[in-house]
This record gives sequence, C-alpha cells and structure tokens, in this order.
Amino acid sequence: MAYLSKLSRYATNPIEEDDAIAERLEHRGKGIIRLNKGDPAVYFPTPDYIKRAYVRAIMQGKTGYARPGGARELVDAVIARYRRMYGLGLDGDDVVVTQGVSEALYMLNSALLDPGDRAILFKPYYTQYVPYVGLAGGREYLLDYKESLGWGIDVDELDRRVRKLKHKARIKYLMVTNPNNPTGTVLGRSTLKSVVELANEHGITLVSDEIYDEIVYNGAKFTSVATLAKGVPHVILNGASKDFDATGFRIGFAIVPGDDAKSASLKRKIADFASVRVSANAPAQYAVAEGMNNRKEHAKAIRSMVREIEERVNFAVKLLGENQYLETVRPQGAFYIFPKVDLKALKFKSDKEFVDAFLKSEYVQLTRGSGFGSPGHIRIVSLPPKGELEAAITRLNEFCNKEA
Amino acid sequence: MAYLSKLSRYATNPIEEDDAIAERLEHRGKGIIRLNKGDPAVYFPTPDYIKRAYVRAIMQGKTGYARPGGARELVDAVIARYRRMYGLGLDGDDVVVTQGVSEALYMLNSALLDPGDRAILFKPYYTQYVPYVGLAGGREYLLDYKESLGWGIDVDELDRRVRKLKHKARIKYLMVTNPNNPTGTVLGRSTLKSVVELANEHGITLVSDEIYDEIVYNGAKFTSVATLAKGVPHVILNGASKDFDATGFRIGFAIVPGDDAKSASLKRKIADFASVRVSANAPAQYAVAEGMNNRKEHAKAIRSMVREIEERVNFAVKLLGENQYLETVRPQGAFYIFPKVDLKALKFKSDKEFVDAFLKSEYVQLTRGSGFGSPGHIRIVSLPPKGELEAAITRLNEFCNKEA
Repeated sequence: MAYLSKLSRYATNPIEEDDAIAERLEHRGKGIIRLNKGDPAVYFPTPDYIKRAYVRAIMQGKTGYARPGGARELVDAVIARYRRMYGLGLDGDDVVVTQGVSEALYMLNSALLDPGDRAILFKPYYTQYVPYVGLAGGREYLLDYKESLGWGIDVDELDRRVRKLKHKARIKYLMVTNPNNPTGTVLGRSTLKSVVELANEHGITLVSDEIYDEIVYNGAKFTSVATLAKGVPHVILNGASKDFDATGFRIGFAIVPGDDAKSASLKRKIADFASVRVSANAPAQYAVAEGMNNRKEHAKAIRSMVREIEERVNFAVKLLGENQYLETVRPQGAFYIFPKVDLKALKFKSDKEFVDAFLKSEYVQLTRGSGFGSPGHIRIVSLPPKGELEAAITRLNEFCNKEA
Repeated sequence: MAYLSKLSRYATNPIEEDDAIAERLEHRGKGIIRLNKGDPAVYFPTPDYIKRAYVRAIMQGKTGYARPGGARELVDAVIARYRRMYGLGLDGDDVVVTQGVSEALYMLNSALLDPGDRAILFKPYYTQYVPYVGLAGGREYLLDYKESLGWGIDVDELDRRVRKLKHKARIKYLMVTNPNNPTGTVLGRSTLKSVVELANEHGITLVSDEIYDEIVYNGAKFTSVATLAKGVPHVILNGASKDFDATGFRIGFAIVPGDDAKSASLKRKIADFASVRVSANAPAQYAVAEGMNNRKEHAKAIRSMVREIEERVNFAVKLLGENQYLETVRPQGAFYIFPKVDLKALKFKSDKEFVDAFLKSEYVQLTRGSGFGSPGHIRIVSLPPKGELEAAITRLNEFCNKEA
C-alpha cells in the first residue's frame, strides 16, 4: 500500500529542481549565476515607497488576520487600478486577494475540476499550471503557442481542437498567459478577441494570467482579456510580484468580473477557499495597496524597471544570436528568453541533460524547456545587469561551441 | 453538468460564516463584539521586538522570494527552539515553513490522502481540519474527546475503534490537537504516550497540532508528541500565529522529525509542495526567526500574554457559571471556552439557530459548536479585556434567561 497519495506526484517545480545541485556547488565555493527564478526583487530593489508603506502597516499594528478575501484597502486599490488602466467597473465581490498567483491557481483548479475534467493550456506554459491541474484531479489538454508565429495562437486550430475535445471530455477552462512566461510574447488584441469569441461559443470559462501586464516593451501593446470578455465567464489572475517588484510579499489576486451565473458561483467559491485558510499576509496587503494607489511613484518605478528590462533582454537576445545552436523569438514582455536549442548538433539527448551539464560545467542555472511543456528549449531569466548576463551567455555560447 | 467541482463543497469555514451578518449589522451602526476569531493580535499588540525585526528585513531588502521550504534563518530558529524547549535534535530537512498551519494542513492532506482514505480526528476538532481532509478527497473518521473526562481521550475506545476501522478502510493518520481548540484541554503525558503506542502498533502516522504549546495555564503541563514519538512516524504542526502573537504574518511550519521510510518520504513530499507555490512571505520569516531567537524578549512577551489570558479565561468561565443553561469545562490552554448549551430548555432547534439569534439580538458573534463537530455547544474566544468579556457574557446570560 502506497503511503503517499497518487495525486501528490504532481507536486513538483521544474524551475527549482536543480536548486540542490546549485547549492552543493556553492558549498564547494563555486559562484552560481542563477537565471532560473523570475524574481525581479533580486535585481531591482522593491520600490522604497512600497517598503515604507509595509513598514507603516507593521508599526500601526496591522499584524492580525486580514479579511479572508483581502483587506478592503487592497480590494479597493485593485478596483481603482482596473478602472484606471482598463476602464473596468469591478465590485468588491469580484476580487479575492490570494497568497500569490500560486494560491489563485490552487483555488481556481480546486473550484472547477472534477477527476478527468480538462483544462486547456497552451505550451509552453508556466511550469506551475500543470501541477495545480493535476493536484486538483484534472487533466491538462495541451495546445501549442506557435513558435513560427512568434509564439502566437493559431485560432483556427484552437477552434478545431476544442470542437473535437468537447465530445470526449468536459472542458472546464481555457487559459492564456499574456504577456507570456516563458516566451515573452504579448498576444494581439484581435487574437484575444477571437479566443474570447471561441470561449463564448463553446461555453468555456476563459482564464487570463496577466501578472506581467505592465512589463511590456519593444513596441508591443498589452490588452487585458477583461476589456474584451464582457458577458463571457472569465477570470483574471494578477498580483504584486512582478509589476510591483514584490515577489516575497506573496500577494496575488483572482478577479472574476462577470455577473452571469457561472461567474457568480465561481467568485463565491473562490471567496470560500479564501475563508478556508483565513487570511493572506496582512501588512503586505497595505503595502501593495499603496503600491497601486500612489500612481506617481509607481509610474516612476515601473517605467524605469521596464526600460532596464527591455535593454537587458535585447542585449541578451543579441548575444544569443551569436550562438548558431540557438534560435530565439524576441520577447515583448515579461523578462524571459526561451531559445530553441539544437540538441542534436550538440549531442544532448534532452534539454534536461543540457541544462544539468551546463550548470555543472559553467555554474549557470537555467530551466529546461520541457518543464514548460516544450522540450528542446531553455528558459533564461534576463533580469541581471548586463555584466552578469554577458558572463552567463558567453559561457553558454562557449559551452555550445565546445560540445558541438 | 455542474460547473463547480464536487470536492469544492468542502471549502467552508464555520468561524467566518456569520461575518456577513455581522458586517451588515455594523453598517447599520451596531457595535459588534466579535468573539469568533482566535486572533490574539487584535488584543495583544504583536511584540515590538518582532515588529522591529520585520521592519529590518524589509528595509534590508529581503523582499524577494524566500527558499521554498523556508528561509534558512527561520528553519535554524525552529530547530534551536525545539532543541531548547523539547530536547529534540532536528535536521534542516525536517522543517518546512508554511503559509500558516492552514497551508501545512493542505500539504499534509494532499500528500497522504487518496479518495476514501481516512484521517482519524477527535471532535470537537478545529473547524478547518475537515475541509482540508475533504478537499484532498479523504474522509474524516470521528472519535470523541470525552467531555466527561474534561475533553480527554478514552484510549481504550480509541484502540477498539481503530481495530475495527482498519479492516474497512486505509487509515492514513491520526490527529490530536494539544492544547486543544476549541476546548482548551491540555492532554496529559500518559494519555499521549498511550496514543503514540497505539499509533505505532497500528502503523498510523500521528499528527499533533501544537500551535498553542506555550499558551498553557491553570497549572497544566504541556508535552510535545515529538518528545514521545521517537521511532513512530509523526508530524508536528506549529507556527508563529499564537505563541508569537503574529497571526497576520501567515507563518507556520510542519515538522517531520523521523528517519524511518515513511517520515523520509513525507518530509520530502511536503518540501515538494512548498516548491509548487515557490515561497511563503519572505520578510515575515526573518521576523519570526528573531521572535524565536530573542529568548529574553520572547519570555517577557509570552509570560505576560499567558498571565493575562489565564485571568480573562477564568474570569469568563466564572461569569458563564452564573448561567444555568451552560456547562463549561475549565480550559488549561489556548484561549477558547466551549460550553455546552441546554438548547432544549432554551427552545432552540440547533446551536446554529442559537448563535445567529444571539448575534442579531445582542450583537455578539460566537461560533456554533457543530462547526467543530460538537453540536449543542458554543465557542467563545476569551481574548478581549475583562470589560468587553463581561459585556458579552452578561448579554449571553440575559439572552438565555429571556429565551428560556
């Protein structure tokens, strides 16, 4: 008789799977360049005005449980942000504050998935979508972002595949990530509109992970699904981690703007899940509220961070272009680069073997593309300053030349 | 076709179920005395030295993701605390930092329970044990803490019931809460020893929720299961919320001290679950580490809080003694009182009806005993200062006299 549960096998995180190797190397005195975790706060200090608001909340004694669905101040700040940025008229009940987008994913999947129910995801996906689907007993159904379309969506294929799948299985939701992790692609308005119409036609709830919505560059324009999906049940996932450079606060939110029956029951259920675990970190919520409400300080902080990220990403893409074994779609958002690796020419059996060998030989930690559902790729976090990025990519290029 | 998942019906929290009624009354200008949530930070400000450590961590920029299983500083502080207080020799791998004990419960249940697997709980139980068992697909098997034994355990009955249950179902764990929420009972060393032996004999993992381990009074003595269970797979749940008066930090931990095969696979799996959600709140972890490491400040804070809690609880119990419709076992730990209510004499059909009517008529929010698995009782949080407790209990006593 097995001691651990069957579903617990889904509890994994490919982004962290080499952390133990990296730690061992560090104990042996090797300096590791970590390009695996997408943590802006390591390279861009969390803005002072947010830290000061956090400190204020603590010193004012806001250290007890917060309201389960989120401190009113933060819920109001989220509503104001969405009115300002996207012209939405959200109610307090539409917003639930979560412990990072992770917890929102847990709540969403647990709320919707019965055993065997399908969640349609596009690959490459953010690694953690799949564990949460699996842990809830559901099954992911994978479609492709098309590398040949700059990691865009082939809407006709989506339509065909959904029609076929509908006869075999219950589809509970369809998820897009925009801007995308790991590809950095920003989906266009017309593509999103088609996806919304399709979700509507097939009666599928649409989920849009928009955690990088303010980290957009290289001329791209971001469109929130919320501005297109009126009347269609949909969920927007977002949080403070990336736009507000506050990963360690663990403050995310799930927004369900609709008034239809499905949306109404889903938002109530997500609030129920919030009540189960009583509260998210309380003082951090006040900090994030100030992060959003202080528009002047935020504009300064985000502009400067995005400008810097754009430069670093483009710098890294250029260096990667010198590597004949890699092929890279230029990102327009987030801060990842997701090159295709010519593993055959490099004589590696898998991307896993490649990133492990590269870590052990060159002390740079990347993440294997198969962790995102796209074998034969690698994800490079392009947040470090140019000097560090240059060191890491130079090692990567030399490593490839050596192995070929 | 149902939109929400079947298991999502378990997402409830009886402690908060009347919050909406209370909020409505407040909007109508009624002042509510809330004796439903066990939040010490509302009445005892989180100690200054802990708040200052929290502020330091923020200003030092510890605002990025922490290590998934917990910042090393906090893991080391937990190890030192358990060495000091209970003579344990824990390793770093034995401790996983969680987002409150809630998340530890989620991880534990998800790691162990397949559909239909049993978790043995004693009632009255902390309300949230059951949702986490149900959400993981498991089933609780309920035994009684015996009110006639001061809410103690009848070990012979436990033995009999486990023998019977073993033939019908897979028992994955047996959980005790010590000191108990909602009864305030502190289990004796010899009872715990018998429970440990029984778990060992039947090969059942023992879980001990010891979140109130320093909040013990009225002459009781606390024994950690960890000091008795060497060689028996066991899990200790604890955190910063109660002993360190820091509920809103959301810092808990799961400790799996054993080296046997079950313990080894369980602690690895809990760490896997931690990696799934990347990180708990980072700066709060440094604050809790200081909370534990600064023994002098902690001793001062906990002594003064426990002395005050003891007085308030005893004061409330005495006032409740004037009510002929209530019968109360005097607590020795935590800060709850759990009287039996003579609903029949009071002509209420259920404890739910009773607490709702009391809230609406007297503006005091309690929690129904059925939420803890023990209908016909009410839970009273005895944290407020005596004046507030007196006002609330006087209203309760008058309400009962009026209704009888």
